[in-house]
Amino acid sequence: MKKVSLLAPGPTPVPPRTLLAMAQPLIHHRSADFMALIGQVREGLKKVFQTKNEVLTFCSSGTGAMESSVANLLSPGDKAIAIRGGKFGERWTDILKAYGCQPIDVNVEWGRAVKPAEIKELLAKDPSIKAVYVQALETSTGVDHPVRELAQVTKDTGAVLVVDAVSALGAYNIPSDEWGLDVVVSGSQKALMMPPGLAFVSIGPKALEMMKTSTLPKFYFSWAKELKSQGQNKGAFTSPVPLFIGLLDVFNFIEENGMQTLWAETEVKSKAFKAAVKAWGLELFSKENASPALTAVKVPENMDAQDVVKWLKDKWGIFIAGGQDQAKGKIFRVAHMGYINEFDTLQAISAIEMALAGLGYSFEMGAGVAAAQRVFGEGM
Amino acid sequence: MKKVSLLAPGPTPVPPRTLLAMAQPLIHHRSADFMALIGQVREGLKKVFQTKNEVLTFCSSGTGAMESSVANLLSPGDKAIAIRGGKFGERWTDILKAYGCQPIDVNVEWGRAVKPAEIKELLAKDPSIKAVYVQALETSTGVDHPVRELAQVTKDTGAVLVVDAVSALGAYNIPSDEWGLDVVVSGSQKALMMPPGLAFVSIGPKALEMMKTSTLPKFYFSWAKELKSQGQNKGAFTSPVPLFIGLLDVFNFIEENGMQTLWAETEVKSKAFKAAVKAWGLELFSKENASPALTAVKVPENMDAQDVVKWLKDKWGIFIAGGQDQAKGKIFRVAHMGYINEFDTLQAISAIEMALAGLGYSFEMGAGVAAAQRVFGEGM
Repeated sequence: MKKVSLLAPGPTPVPPRTLLAMAQPLIHHRSADFMALIGQVREGLKKVFQTKNEVLTFCSSGTGAMESSVANLLSPGDKAIAIRGGKFGERWTDILKAYGCQPIDVNVEWGRAVKPAEIKELLAKDPSIKAVYVQALETSTGVDHPVRELAQVTKDTGAVLVVDAVSALGAYNIPSDEWGLDVVVSGSQKALMMPPGLAFVSIGPKALEMMKTSTLPKFYFSWAKELKSQGQNKGAFTSPVPLFIGLLDVFNFIEENGMQTLWAETEVKSKAFKAAVKAWGLELFSKENASPALTAVKVPENMDAQDVVKWLKDKWGIFIAGGQDQAKGKIFRVAHMGYINEFDTLQAISAIEMALAGLGYSFEMGAGVAAAQRVFGEGM
Repeated sequence: MKKVSLLAPGPTPVPPRTLLAMAQPLIHHRSADFMALIGQVREGLKKVFQTKNEVLTFCSSGTGAMESSVANLLSPGDKAIAIRGGKFGERWTDILKAYGCQPIDVNVEWGRAVKPAEIKELLAKDPSIKAVYVQALETSTGVDHPVRELAQVTKDTGAVLVVDAVSALGAYNIPSDEWGLDVVVSGSQKALMMPPGLAFVSIGPKALEMMKTSTLPKFYFSWAKELKSQGQNKGAFTSPVPLFIGLLDVFNFIEENGMQTLWAETEVKSKAFKAAVKAWGLELFSKENASPALTAVKVPENMDAQDVVKWLKDKWGIFIAGGQDQAKGKIFRVAHMGYINEFDTLQAISAIEMALAGLGYSFEMGAGVAAAQRVFGEGM
């Protein structure tokens, strides 16, 4: 029998208790009960974002919250740096262009992280640059950009730092306030273990100040509107009630397990998986800053990575991800964030081993599983 | 014991089977299974919208789809008519202003419907007007605007007709293609019996043509992007998987019951409720075109309608809606659309009777219930 297993970097599996919590009969979105629930969700978001700033929730995919951090900060013709180290970095350019802003593209080789010194130089040369847009984790390559160091660079300039942490937030430690991240964007369907449908954005003082002068059009994604409404525990528009119920359940789950414990577990799953990759004689796609939240693996020469993805999906109903755009066919990607444990990880490793063997790659069968087991055993 | 009853015009109750369908483990948003599901949902939407046009789905509240029909049709400075017969009509003006367009406000007394001749005159006087924005049902007043006649008016002009049918679609017969409605916007949480979170927009040939010249910024709500993606049964961004599963279940439910049967039932519930209002000696808020999808009732002089709403909510957990803005305190509103049947309607009537009596209004107790029962009995 096939059991569907989600081991791609999003959407990740949703805890069954959370799915059932969301199956409760609807309550009214303007009722006192629901307003209390929004209040609890807002507190939970602040904990997860590690911030005292307001964290807004939008009913949309993560892209909606990304777009909101262009539409609410900038004005037509404004210059902004887009750090492009993968598919999601490129999305910043696309959004900036769609809004008639001037993106300054900083192209980073896929698999590498941006050098903060390069951004520092650009900002020093042109003080009219209003924002720096980056990913905490570039999901398409498995690389973490050094957002802490970027915040040091933007701190004393007029530019705000906007961090897309859709895949990163909740997977490992990103203390928004301690690091001074002005804006952090995230989504429900990765480390937060929820179905897609909710997107979040935390807004620091420097961004709030810039917001006041922004003239780009916004309505549904208006921060000003939602700051006012959500500040009173109401959505400006009709809230997706069950998703809020589910999110609160996940926050309870995170609280019960301990956020730091979940980060540590993600780290161990990542180490175990990366040990398996080494045991197979394969390489990571990331040449530096390999993320703990997911691993991108280069397939052997002459193998199409899509065949590995297809093998797992067709034979066993296991979903990992392939590469995107220029990485298509060259890599596959496996998630460690969210509601995925050691045995889910061992399942992925085992399935990939069997696929690699089936596709003619020659290596010692079981070596990856054993390497991972050793890592998992260490912490026992 | 209190049982929460949703009898406000949205969100309406979700069938328990649909809630449980949505509690299934997630599937991957790029899997063949999910793409097949999107295909079925697209077919279902075309049936419900009664159109051959593409119907796009967005993860957002209905407002997002309203906004999309400004951002994707118009360019800065464009003139467009906003028919303002209530709170949702006024939203068109707000969106048009947010996008730097020139709204031509047609103010209609709350409780009345727009006169198509007035729109005809405006369009004849100024052929540069690019669009007419209207509600099929103005939820804040319970009035249906004559969208069929408006389509006759816009047909031979350069203006597209954009109809917000968030509360109307599925509640009664609105044949998009037969009536020639260029763009129809709807949402999941009213007659479609789903939680909030999905918004829809059908796009006819005239609108597709105008879309090509629109220069307003759009990204998440881009029609062009989604027409391309959804045309291949994929969302441009991560789709809210469980909501699609739920929507397909609702479409099956509608198919099993028969769409025309559900419209007829809504009509009967509306008649029964309106008969009760008459029996109480009260008046509808709508002076014409009272919608079958919901009823707005004026409370007796010297009574605050919010007290009726509060009475039902606090005593029995029954949610009806009050009035908004200028109608606040003067009216309450009760829904007949969606997963609400005769006995839910009788419950609303019975609860309102007891509240009216409790609040000191003098009338024959039980008269409303009896009047409604007579209407329900007629069709047996």
